[in-house]
Parts: sequence; C-alpha cells; structure tokens
Amino acid sequence: MEAPSNITIKGILGLLTANTDGCKKVISLGMGDPTAYSCFRTTRTAQNAVVEALQSANFNGYSPTVGLPQTRKAIAEYLSKDLPYTLHSDDVYITAGCTQAIETTLSILTRPGANILLPRPGFPIYGLCAAFRHLEARYFDLLPHNQWEVDLKALQGLADHNTVAMVIINPGNPCGNVYTYRHLKEIAETAKRLGIVVIADEVYGHLAFGADPFVAMGVFGSVAPVITLGSLSKRWLVPGWRLGWLVTSDPHGKSPKFMERLKKYCDINGGPATFIQAAVPAIVGETQQAFFTKTNNLLKQTSEICYWKIKEMDCISCPSKPQGSMAFMVKLNVSLLKDISDDIDFCFKLAKEESVILLPGAAVGLKNWLRITFAVEPSSLDEALQRVNSFCQRHSCN
Amino acid sequence: MEAPSNITIKGILGLLTANTDGCKKVISLGMGDPTAYSCFRTTRTAQNAVVEALQSANFNGYSPTVGLPQTRKAIAEYLSKDLPYTLHSDDVYITAGCTQAIETTLSILTRPGANILLPRPGFPIYGLCAAFRHLEARYFDLLPHNQWEVDLKALQGLADHNTVAMVIINPGNPCGNVYTYRHLKEIAETAKRLGIVVIADEVYGHLAFGADPFVAMGVFGSVAPVITLGSLSKRWLVPGWRLGWLVTSDPHGKSPKFMERLKKYCDINGGPATFIQAAVPAIVGETQQAFFTKTNNLLKQTSEICYWKIKEMDCISCPSKPQGSMAFMVKLNVSLLKDISDDIDFCFKLAKEESVILLPGAAVGLKNWLRITFAVEPSSLDEALQRVNSFCQRHSCN
Repeated sequence: MEAPSNITIKGILGLLTANTDGCKKVISLGMGDPTAYSCFRTTRTAQNAVVEALQSANFNGYSPTVGLPQTRKAIAEYLSKDLPYTLHSDDVYITAGCTQAIETTLSILTRPGANILLPRPGFPIYGLCAAFRHLEARYFDLLPHNQWEVDLKALQGLADHNTVAMVIINPGNPCGNVYTYRHLKEIAETAKRLGIVVIADEVYGHLAFGADPFVAMGVFGSVAPVITLGSLSKRWLVPGWRLGWLVTSDPHGKSPKFMERLKKYCDINGGPATFIQAAVPAIVGETQQAFFTKTNNLLKQTSEICYWKIKEMDCISCPSKPQGSMAFMVKLNVSLLKDISDDIDFCFKLAKEESVILLPGAAVGLKNWLRITFAVEPSSLDEALQRVNSFCQRHSCN
Repeated sequence: MEAPSNITIKGILGLLTANTDGCKKVISLGMGDPTAYSCFRTTRTAQNAVVEALQSANFNGYSPTVGLPQTRKAIAEYLSKDLPYTLHSDDVYITAGCTQAIETTLSILTRPGANILLPRPGFPIYGLCAAFRHLEARYFDLLPHNQWEVDLKALQGLADHNTVAMVIINPGNPCGNVYTYRHLKEIAETAKRLGIVVIADEVYGHLAFGADPFVAMGVFGSVAPVITLGSLSKRWLVPGWRLGWLVTSDPHGKSPKFMERLKKYCDINGGPATFIQAAVPAIVGETQQAFFTKTNNLLKQTSEICYWKIKEMDCISCPSKPQGSMAFMVKLNVSLLKDISDDIDFCFKLAKEESVILLPGAAVGLKNWLRITFAVEPSSLDEALQRVNSFCQRHSCN
C-alpha cells in the first residue's frame, strides 16, 4: 500500500536544515521543541520523580494498557481543576505522547465512508493519520483577522451525516491564539447541532500568556461530547518523555461500544514507559507554580520579541499578537520580494543564505504564510530575526 | 465502529484474578512479566544508563520518529552479531515496545482484501491488530508432537495471492520451543515460494536454554524478505520500558514504497522516550554476559521444575520440554476430571480454589490446553504447582 502523500513538518525541516551552507550557526525557529535551550529546562521535581520511580525497580514491568491506575487518577485530578465537574480515572487513557492520543482517537472514530473536520492551518499529523485510517479529511478555515477563530458557518457547510468529529487545537498550533470561553461555547453548540464529537487538542494547555485565560474544551462536555488530548510535553518541557493522555469528557454518559473499542485499541498500542507513568502523580502534584509562571513569562517575552521585530519587516505581517502555545503564523507578501516565488522558496533561500529555519505555511495548510516558533532562547531569537530582516531587505523590490 | 471481539490475555487474566477468593496468596503463572521477582531484576548497567541519559537533560526533546541515530546504530550492531551480513542503522526502526512493532508491521502490510497467516497457538495481539486493520487472519497449526514446528504443508494450502505475510514467534510464545536452523530455512523457502514476507517475532530472542541455540530468522533474509521484531523487554527484564524495534532484513534490496510508507507511519506513532533510546548503546554494549547467563540458567531451572511437576499430574501432559522463552503449553485431559468442562472452567475453578492463575489455552487459540509461565521465582513456582496438583487430585475421576 502506498504512503499518504502528506508533507510532514519534520520532513520539510530536515530538508531545510540540509540546505544550510554551514557558514553561520543554524538557528531553528521551526519546531515546538525548546529543550535544547537551558532556559527551557524541565523542573527538577519532574526529573527526580522519574529517576526515583526507575530506581525503585517497582516499575520495570508492564502497566495496564490503558495506563497505571495512579497515573490515570493523577491526570483526572489535574484536569478536573479546569472543569465544572470531576473526571474519574476511568475517563483517562495514558498514551505515548499526544501523537499516540491523536492516532488512537482517529482510529477508534473511523468507519467506512466517515469524514473528519480539520482546521486549516493545522497540525499535519491529523491529516496523515486520517489518510492511514481511511478517514476523509475536510478542512475548515481559521480566520486570521478574527483571532484565528473557527469559521463556524463554513464548517457547518462541510459536515454531513458521515462526519464523525471536528478538531480544535487550543492554545493554537500553528497560530498562537487562545480561544475565548464564548468561542469555545459556540464550537460546542455547533458540534451538538451537527451531532459530532469535538476533539480538543490541548497539548499546549495552560501555555497562555495573553489577555484571555486558557479554557478547557471539557468545560462544554455537557453540550457536546469532547475528547481531550494532552501531554506533559509542552507545559513540562519534556516532549521526549512521550507521556500523553486521551480523556473522554462527557458528564452525561458515554457510549459503552466506544469505550470497549477504546480499551481494546489500547491493547495494540505501545504506550509510555511504566516508570514514567509512575512519576506522574508527583509531577502533576508537586510542580511549583513558579516553574509554570517562569515558562509563560519567557514565552510572553520571546513572542513579543518576534511580534515587534516582524512588524519592522515590510514583506511579513502578523494579523494578531501571539497569546499562547510556542508558535504563531505570519503572512508573507511575496510581491514585495524580487526573486522569491512563494513561502517554500523563501524558507529554502533563507536556510541557505542565513542558516535560519522557518516552517513554510504550506506545511500546515496555508501557502505564503510562515510558522515561527518563539520558544527559543531570547538572544538566539534576536539573532535569527535580525538575519531574517537582512534577508528580506536584500531580496526586497525596493 | 465495533471493537474486534478477540479475547486478550490481559483481559482474561484480570477476570481470573478477580475470581480468587482472597484466602491464599495469589500466584500468577499467567503472564510473561517476571519483574515482580527480585531474581528477575534487570542489570544495574541498564538502569544506570537510563538514569544517566535522563539526568544529562540532553534527551528531553523529541527524537526522530524512526528513532535516535545512535539507538538505531546500536540495535543494528547488536542484531548483526546473529547474522551472516551487516544491518545498517536505516534498517532499524525504534518502537514503543514490541507491541508497537507488531502494530506498525501489520498496518503497513495491509491492503484491501489482504490476509495474513498467524500461528495457532499464538499471541492474540496479532489477531486483534489484524482485525483493527481489516487484515484477514488465517491460522496455521503449530505441531505439538513435532517441537511445535509450523505445519508447512497446511500453511501452503491457506495462502493465496492476497496473502501478504506469515508470522513466526521464536523462541516460541506460548509454546516454549526454539526452532532449528533447518526448520527456519524451510519456513524461509516456503515464504519465498508463496511470495510473502516472514514476520519474525523475536521478542524472546536469545532466551534459549535447551539443546538448540537461538537462530535469528534474519539469517534467511536472502531467501525471503524478513521483518524482525524485538525489544529489550524480555532479555533485559524490562517490559515496562517500552523499547522495541522493527528491522527489515533483506540484504538483496528493499521496496522503496514500503520504506516510504514505514517512515510515514512512524510519524503517527508515539515511540519510546528519547532518554531511554539514548541509553540503548550502553545497554546493549555494556551488559555483561553473566547477566544473560544467569537469566537463562534460572529459566532452565524453573522450566524444569514445571516440566517434572507437570509430569506427575495425570490430567496434564506436556508434549515437549520447554527450550526457550518464558512459557510453555501443556495439554489438559478433562475426561480424567469429574467436574471440569474445559480449560476455561479449569482455570476459573483453579483461581477460585487455589489462587493460582494459569492462562486457558483458548486465549491463545488452543482449547483444552493451558499456558504456564515459568518465569517465576522458584519457591513460588513450587508452591503454585503443588496447589495445581492438589486441585487436580481433588477433581480427579479416580
């Protein structure tokens, strides 16, 4: 069988990196993995908890495929703080990172002829996963001049009786937006009208540093069925630990068939390491607020550096200031550049001439935009944006 | 979509455990996870390597989805020692345990109308996974009175032009057999004739303590295409670390389409933790032979305890002495028991009356057989088998 033809972010970033010429130090603003910078290091609490669990030698064996009971309980308690009701351990399935939570969700929702509504711009793993599971992907727009809100009217036009779910990513990747309570409520009401599940990708949950606080989609679990996906990856700065979760937030009952299928599906998953799971109660229970505040302050600072530096560049514009996550989208005006044909051309030439990696918008569904990751140590970010500025000036029509 | 209706081992063991009455200490000879016993503890080398990788803080970020380069290289070198040719890093894909290697393999091999040949008795994850991927499972028999060799003649009758692969598990789970060089060669030649891939599940690789040494199926990679699946789980006694691999052993070239699909598929997998991957070069490079020898000696000892104790029981017989892995199959003669209807009834009553857990053969495809795990601390094993003996005598017709 052929591989789906989707572009992957890692694939294109790899090609861009290979296109650098080695003269300058490569600075990547391409991926949401800031762990290379010491200012984005995880807390000792988390690291020690994992070391302790490992050294106890009590967690070298298999865990239940749905996750250790204490891990499910800890995540249920952690997420319940954001909800008007209490999640139970049984609502939580522990996965190998958020990626496996995505894969599991799409796999259990698929059926012959089914389709799923995905955001554009979005996260390509959804499209790739849908293709592998024979789930037709239909794309709805996020509106750049409306804080990247979902174009709900257009979305309703896309749905039919074979639509099983819609995906929202909040805080937004790749857009850096944070949805308001009002908009999330509208999303839930729309999903209810359409009879579909809301898949709420909250891998960047709580990484909100703008005016609007992070609101969990599960708040509207009584309006429409919500499957919340998340992980330790971003908030704890440990994407390589592969500790994620899938949570069914539906306080008014669940489909027993769905739950049975989900449990069976967990049996064919690899799942995360047992000793990392065993550390989760300490990780979510004992991490100090100061650690989270420090990360959000730093992201606010670096996002502002980006925003204001971009504002100085004629050929790049930004519809709204980033409010959350680790990246945002900026618009490229190629008509102001004399020898750049599109976003991909821009990124390849930028990589070659300046050793700076940006992600072409095409990789996330938006041609002639760019995704910039601001989860980067401030001086490297400064340097990278200065190089982007030089590049733009050198290629300017004027 | 409905869940496939397959029995899972963990599911049935859970029911059996729930059926114990709490009077005696529960002893499980049900699952291949001996980590609860201190005599089956992993080596310090492995544990320290993981702690070190974690504490370095260099491996908190994402790894490439196919695995870290140094991990792929270390596994390629480790497995090449068993082969007449050298594997390359690119032949190795790192997975979240062997389970994810199974899932990945079946997912990339499936196509509309395809079928796969699975051993009976076998490992139920294959059937479950095939059902989720719409891959028809056809079962070939393993011959109990012929060292559990594959019934190759019957297997050829099952295959047609839609057959994509056959699975062998060697050393054998659930049978405890170790295939000879001669038989593996016959398997490869049969696969070649049928134009199918051999999926060689070697999760118990090197856990061979009988007359025949472990021979890797990849030895015959030049006869037929072989996909080898394995993990640290069994040989290093760390099933909870979820560090497995999928290796394409085909020295005479590979299908570029297959490789492309495999790489893309890795993008939707969770994969194992990066810092565990980073420890693999030290784990496979520095573990002392004495550790492996100790484990194999212990398994030889416990398998013999099992074999000879079972021999004393009238209603249970064993066609061949276990030679490898951590479990073997024994035949139940219910006609000698006055009030036991079948293997499932036997296991439930045994759990209730004696708090000993055995796996009914039905769970692995062989009614009125039992799977006994002997990777158990010797005194517990003695005690458990004594209870099985009392149970059999109490329920005997005589």
